[in-house]
Amino acid sequence: MTRVNEHYLKLRAGYLFPEIGRRVRAFQEEEPKARVIRLGIGDVTLPLAPSVVRALHEAADEMGTAEGFRGYGPEQGYEFLREAIREHDYRSRGVDVAADEIFVSDGSKQDSGNIQEIFGAACSIAVTDPVYPVYVDTNVMAGRTGPADDQGRSPGIQYLPATEANGFAPPPPSERVDLVYLCSPNNPTGSVIDREGLARWVAWARAGDAVLVFDAAYDAYIQDPALPHSIYEIEGARQCAVEMRSFSKRAGFTGVRCAYTVVPQELTGSAGDGERVPLHRLWSRRQSTKFNGVPYLVQRAAAATYTPEGRKQTAEQVAFYMENARLLREDLTAAGFSVFGGIHAPYIWMRTPEGLSSWAFFDRLLREAHVVGTPGAGFGPSGEGYLRLSAFNSRENVREALARIRRAFERD
Amino acid sequence: MTRVNEHYLKLRAGYLFPEIGRRVRAFQEEEPKARVIRLGIGDVTLPLAPSVVRALHEAADEMGTAEGFRGYGPEQGYEFLREAIREHDYRSRGVDVAADEIFVSDGSKQDSGNIQEIFGAACSIAVTDPVYPVYVDTNVMAGRTGPADDQGRSPGIQYLPATEANGFAPPPPSERVDLVYLCSPNNPTGSVIDREGLARWVAWARAGDAVLVFDAAYDAYIQDPALPHSIYEIEGARQCAVEMRSFSKRAGFTGVRCAYTVVPQELTGSAGDGERVPLHRLWSRRQSTKFNGVPYLVQRAAAATYTPEGRKQTAEQVAFYMENARLLREDLTAAGFSVFGGIHAPYIWMRTPEGLSSWAFFDRLLREAHVVGTPGAGFGPSGEGYLRLSAFNSRENVREALARIRRAFERD
Repeated sequence: MTRVNEHYLKLRAGYLFPEIGRRVRAFQEEEPKARVIRLGIGDVTLPLAPSVVRALHEAADEMGTAEGFRGYGPEQGYEFLREAIREHDYRSRGVDVAADEIFVSDGSKQDSGNIQEIFGAACSIAVTDPVYPVYVDTNVMAGRTGPADDQGRSPGIQYLPATEANGFAPPPPSERVDLVYLCSPNNPTGSVIDREGLARWVAWARAGDAVLVFDAAYDAYIQDPALPHSIYEIEGARQCAVEMRSFSKRAGFTGVRCAYTVVPQELTGSAGDGERVPLHRLWSRRQSTKFNGVPYLVQRAAAATYTPEGRKQTAEQVAFYMENARLLREDLTAAGFSVFGGIHAPYIWMRTPEGLSSWAFFDRLLREAHVVGTPGAGFGPSGEGYLRLSAFNSRENVREALARIRRAFERD
Repeated sequence: MTRVNEHYLKLRAGYLFPEIGRRVRAFQEEEPKARVIRLGIGDVTLPLAPSVVRALHEAADEMGTAEGFRGYGPEQGYEFLREAIREHDYRSRGVDVAADEIFVSDGSKQDSGNIQEIFGAACSIAVTDPVYPVYVDTNVMAGRTGPADDQGRSPGIQYLPATEANGFAPPPPSERVDLVYLCSPNNPTGSVIDREGLARWVAWARAGDAVLVFDAAYDAYIQDPALPHSIYEIEGARQCAVEMRSFSKRAGFTGVRCAYTVVPQELTGSAGDGERVPLHRLWSRRQSTKFNGVPYLVQRAAAATYTPEGRKQTAEQVAFYMENARLLREDLTAAGFSVFGGIHAPYIWMRTPEGLSSWAFFDRLLREAHVVGTPGAGFGPSGEGYLRLSAFNSRENVREALARIRRAFERD
């Protein structure tokens, strides 16, 4: 009679993507000849850049020699990678981040899921809605919520609706909240928070002594140089924000696994007696106790993305996907759909036609166009009536998917 | 005033190995010319096996082609690796484990640290003492304990003393406990639980409806074919145990990162209403929400250790370390020390001489022999008066360390 963590039982039936996977598999069993085009899960499709492949080969060779072999690395990541991150992702934009404030990890999913562990069990949480499900589900699992309501909302979490009216970038709430998850460029809506918007969040957080979790996993897709890549481009953010970045989408690392989280030394939370506790100390303890670092050869591969050649090659990959995004956005708009995003993000956020629900549109797209999207409702109640399409695919598949969608919805 | 997780503040000053690292660095700053030999942290030293290096190269090449590229893999691991594990680690010993009961991960540290998440907050915990600190610390962080006492014990955790009298393999406690962590071959004592001992644990767990977390990260070091490698060699274990294994020590993967956990379908815990909940479902949900799988090329490398060539090469590595263990054990015994372990495990558990405390002996070894061990007290109160030496080093360093220890303690 060992008791399980019953908070897990509050989670909805399945994590969104496994559920999509099940429906696609069921359809393919019914219609094995259908050539399904997947614009659902946001997974990259281009092969690794040659400079990354070369770094993997070199590191594999090193690991095969007595002199070059590396066992356990520093839990926080090798200095060579943290220095490259500091230089190219921060100093190049005028932001000072110390190498020891950077924690290299195996993914932003992990980091954004694990970060809640260092906060108190009674912390209040806010997320924008629709939202990347990991932020919510990991707080449900940690017991910070009650049983989900009919719309899938978890009581205890404040949902800030991201709507067409607010450009899918909701402003800070009127009351204070302990912990807010922000994602920009946004998954799933493809929106982006501009400098003024971020400054409002930072001012709000500082006024209320709140903590912002800023997930910038898609920063490489920002096209306008005036838009902030890092929340630390905003004065005062070091006192109120942690930031996450990933190599997954910027360098095709979804199957290679590398990301990082920045926790500034100034950032603190409070203990019960009012003592200020640096979050850096807690995150460092969390990572050194529950994590053993990213494979050496993966860190070498990540570092290769910062070489002149690596930067050029990965920028070309991003440009390729962004051309897909442009095609999706323009073609669907021309066909009469209402679409958003896709300008500074690899995601198109599409209003469902004919008043269809998200899952009904998902099923029709799958059955009639053999195209897989991601139902907006899977990202939260305000996602109902929308569907996310990803730009991660070949040009040919994107064009073919567009043609099929036009045909299926008689928009030719 | 966002509250932090105050349970972190109950943790002792630092995780054991960072503390050792700090002392060694301080010593090296004082005596920069001293050539320190590290037999402290259990990290492998031999280069990766050629078959593993080749698999890494092949997978890197695949990832560089449009046809071979792989993005997100299954969170639970690729079928090719899970099938190889099932065949070579289980079926070969007459144990049936299904591929979908195997969860590939990036380390047993992670798995043994994360497993507590799927259990209730009020679960009672038992560990053998001394113990791998991760089992205890992750339960402290989760709030299952009170503030540590003077000896570093965390109230709420039952410590089962592993002593010379019980061969460092304590029997099950008289009362029931929800969750027990067992490690065999044992880190740090180098002891091993034999078939009868494991059968007692399984019978005890089944009688009390308890769950055993069986950490067999060092199973490859077992020399006697009659000793169990898997707890599932014991009848009834599928109803009461999860099992963890790792490629770290068996194939030199500490810097490559691959491991796995087995959660049998029959294994359940209970919800508050008495409903039985499969732990497989909870672990699967945990992993799919908070983890994104192990890098494809790492999984290919792990699979290569099961080819005839890979098995031969990695067995040679294990044999090399075990020869070091034999030298340490026999030479220290001949020099008059009391040493344990080192027969089915790469660890020597050494009683401190002259009644020294573990840390005092650690400091003397460091200062007088320039050898780094791991203080037994760092693994729990019953480790006081012992020190762990690891067999992971070159033959030359092991011989040199032995000569220096003899000289320092005048045992020549």
